[in-house]
Amino acid sequence: MSNEVDTDHPVLEIIASRWSPYSFDGRPVPDEDMLSIFEAARWAPSSYNEQPWHYIIAGKENKEEFETMLLCLVEANQLWAKNAPVLALGITRLSFIRNDKPNRAAIHDLGLASMNLVLEATARGIAVHQMIGIEPGRIRNVYNVPEGFEPVTGLAIGYAASPDRMPEALRERDLTRRTRRPLKEFIFSGKWGQVSGLVK
Amino acid sequence: MSNEVDTDHPVLEIIASRWSPYSFDGRPVPDEDMLSIFEAARWAPSSYNEQPWHYIIAGKENKEEFETMLLCLVEANQLWAKNAPVLALGITRLSFIRNDKPNRAAIHDLGLASMNLVLEATARGIAVHQMIGIEPGRIRNVYNVPEGFEPVTGLAIGYAASPDRMPEALRERDLTRRTRRPLKEFIFSGKWGQVSGLVK
Repeated sequence: MSNEVDTDHPVLEIIASRWSPYSFDGRPVPDEDMLSIFEAARWAPSSYNEQPWHYIIAGKENKEEFETMLLCLVEANQLWAKNAPVLALGITRLSFIRNDKPNRAAIHDLGLASMNLVLEATARGIAVHQMIGIEPGRIRNVYNVPEGFEPVTGLAIGYAASPDRMPEALRERDLTRRTRRPLKEFIFSGKWGQVSGLVK
Repeated sequence: MSNEVDTDHPVLEIIASRWSPYSFDGRPVPDEDMLSIFEAARWAPSSYNEQPWHYIIAGKENKEEFETMLLCLVEANQLWAKNAPVLALGITRLSFIRNDKPNRAAIHDLGLASMNLVLEATARGIAVHQMIGIEPGRIRNVYNVPEGFEPVTGLAIGYAASPDRMPEALRERDLTRRTRRPLKEFIFSGKWGQVSGLVK
């Protein structure tokens, strides 16, 4: 199952073929792949090299840990994420370690790390479907996340499966071609809303 | 000038070799590379496929536009970013288009798009140095950024140069080996702070 798009301008294959499936098969992800996936996150850039990102992971081989994490997702996500072999939560530190001042880049930089993670996974034939639909309060309680750290995302990690056995609504999502708005809608020059000459 | 690190686990070369130079030479970036760089951002994933990211770009060939954007960075960044051939600002939409509700992923997803952008650039031998040190209020005024959109980052885009002609403090930064904390400091399982068996 792959879902490569025709881009308007050439980009790396891992960028064009990356997608977020709703259908996962249960095949476990080898440890060496998992390690490289998180190593990729590790080398993302961050404001003042703060590296505010943290991940809690739960593999299906530990049923209790997996179920506990599954319940930290909103119900609509539990429906399909339960099929992935690995779940993770993306949590960021909101202040700088060295001076305790707010880090305006904290959430942004978690995004940088997670994109590295996703692309490393893609290169290994592994799909990652990120979710904003999580239960931050429950996560905070269940995992004892300290004040000053914010649970932001959930991640389902595994191998994309044929969507045949999915409920129809989700199956359709996996079979629908991915779309994006054109560059001229978000690349500006000179002032807001003025399409950049580059993309005209 | 390259700066590839020895990673603890194998990752894509573009991830290991990506870095944020302070030294840029003035060589312009070809339009076809610029287009592919932003095309890469375009195909990032986002919550509900909202694509909240927007970029304003200014190339040095338009001196006035470039100077205007340079003044939207904090002074410490102006010092070195002035040497890059292209500047950009990363701005995100804080609410969903379809229902005007707050998008909790708005800033995170700008990070996803920008990481795609940076890796596509890296694959083309182009460096991107992102900055959180910008002047959001000035950007809002100068570019007429509407309410509900937040300027988050600046980006200097171009070719890394030899740091020889940089002021000493910045030269040292470019010559210092990049470091990251080990995986066991931010990959947990079961509860906060408990190192995951994967990375022990």
